[in-house]
Amino acid sequence: MLQEIEAVIIDLDGTMFKGKRLIPKADDAVAYLRSLGKRIAFVSNRGNISQRMCYEWLKKWRISVRKEEIILSSTVTAEFLYVHYPFCKVWTLGDDGLQEELQRYHVRLAKKPEEADFLVITLHERMTYDDLNLAFQAVQHGARIIATHADKTFPNENGNAIDVVGMIGAIEATTGRKVELILGKPSCFMAEAALRYLQVSPPKCLIIGDSIETDIRMGRMHGMKTALVLTGNTKKKHLDSLLEKELPDYIIDSIYDIVRFGEEIVQ
Amino acid sequence: MLQEIEAVIIDLDGTMFKGKRLIPKADDAVAYLRSLGKRIAFVSNRGNISQRMCYEWLKKWRISVRKEEIILSSTVTAEFLYVHYPFCKVWTLGDDGLQEELQRYHVRLAKKPEEADFLVITLHERMTYDDLNLAFQAVQHGARIIATHADKTFPNENGNAIDVVGMIGAIEATTGRKVELILGKPSCFMAEAALRYLQVSPPKCLIIGDSIETDIRMGRMHGMKTALVLTGNTKKKHLDSLLEKELPDYIIDSIYDIVRFGEEIVQ
Repeated sequence: MLQEIEAVIIDLDGTMFKGKRLIPKADDAVAYLRSLGKRIAFVSNRGNISQRMCYEWLKKWRISVRKEEIILSSTVTAEFLYVHYPFCKVWTLGDDGLQEELQRYHVRLAKKPEEADFLVITLHERMTYDDLNLAFQAVQHGARIIATHADKTFPNENGNAIDVVGMIGAIEATTGRKVELILGKPSCFMAEAALRYLQVSPPKCLIIGDSIETDIRMGRMHGMKTALVLTGNTKKKHLDSLLEKELPDYIIDSIYDIVRFGEEIVQ
Repeated sequence: MLQEIEAVIIDLDGTMFKGKRLIPKADDAVAYLRSLGKRIAFVSNRGNISQRMCYEWLKKWRISVRKEEIILSSTVTAEFLYVHYPFCKVWTLGDDGLQEELQRYHVRLAKKPEEADFLVITLHERMTYDDLNLAFQAVQHGARIIATHADKTFPNENGNAIDVVGMIGAIEATTGRKVELILGKPSCFMAEAALRYLQVSPPKCLIIGDSIETDIRMGRMHGMKTALVLTGNTKKKHLDSLLEKELPDYIIDSIYDIVRFGEEIVQ
């Protein structure tokens, strides 16, 4: 499994973390991959935090990581706007991390909603009615809509919570305008950002993630090797109903199992 | 207006044509631009016809055109899939022109909806309930959704008719899944395709179109010169309500007015 692999893309939620807890020995798995000299990228659909915030979180858990290894949907959205719309002004509906990431890429933030060329939507866990109304104003004055990702719900302490699709739904329904671009996994924008950073050809890249819909799908579509972990979204009972086109190359209980795989090859 | 311009992007519906009729002397305007040695691209959000179909239509009207000068939203969608998703299989909901364009770019068409990685939606003027159901099946089996453009209505002989947003709405509402990418104007994908073809820097490129929302907006956002014609979507009465950020560089009654502009410079 690991012999031919030069670089590894690691998903965060459900693969490294379960809610706010580290998945047992996930840190050791990363250290093990480092010891083998594998290049690593941490890729997540979180659009409401910045690279810096994510870096500090990973450091808190003593995970071996460099800042530039972290590629979030906020990162890819900011880079996309910087490259393809260098003149645009942006209004955001989302937590502060998104704005921080846009500013890191020198994307201009509109001072008023009316000025905005784009409304960028991500998860906003402290959203108020006023925030929603300002975003609505932006679109009413012609802003086009982009979303960092399009997850409907995410698990929190009380079961499921509304994810970004809640914010998107409110704006689309009230303005009659549609999101024109969603950047998160499984999009080619995330895949290409990771492959570009890792400087690896897809067949020599392994993606490890918990989601058939995003991680495995993105890996398969771009010709990477894929490993599904069962510590997140996908449970054993779901495996029987998978279509052939959805199957990962490997199914492992947790990310730490890659150590076992590595050892088997050595012996 | 024309002196510093090396290349011209010309919109079709509302600029060259009104419904199925040529706008008076639009053909002469094109011939005039040719006589000045300007490079030309015809750019349209039509996603349900192919480059070949459009070429034959323009030839029928004796417009001076080369096939490769025609860039439709079907063209750009096909090129996008070819470049970014070389391994994908596609199901379509739309008129035959879309499939023809996908095949020209060697995008693989799924034999059954269940096989599809993407459902590509465009206007489908002969759509049946069965077509809609097959597209629904594709998404139920995991296909992601892409749309060539996102116009709500278009003018036909009987007033307004349902455009692609009708097809998108049916699929989104029944599957609970969202379109993740819309490729037509004013997207950067259309702008970059045209600029790449024309080999021109944006300030030396003039876009002529009838829509503030798509043509003028795309031109402005990418740093081109912009000319609005009043033969299509936008009427004189709309001009007063335009925001500063929406204003074109020039407003002309019809595309033939560029001849007048050109002559003024010569004199």
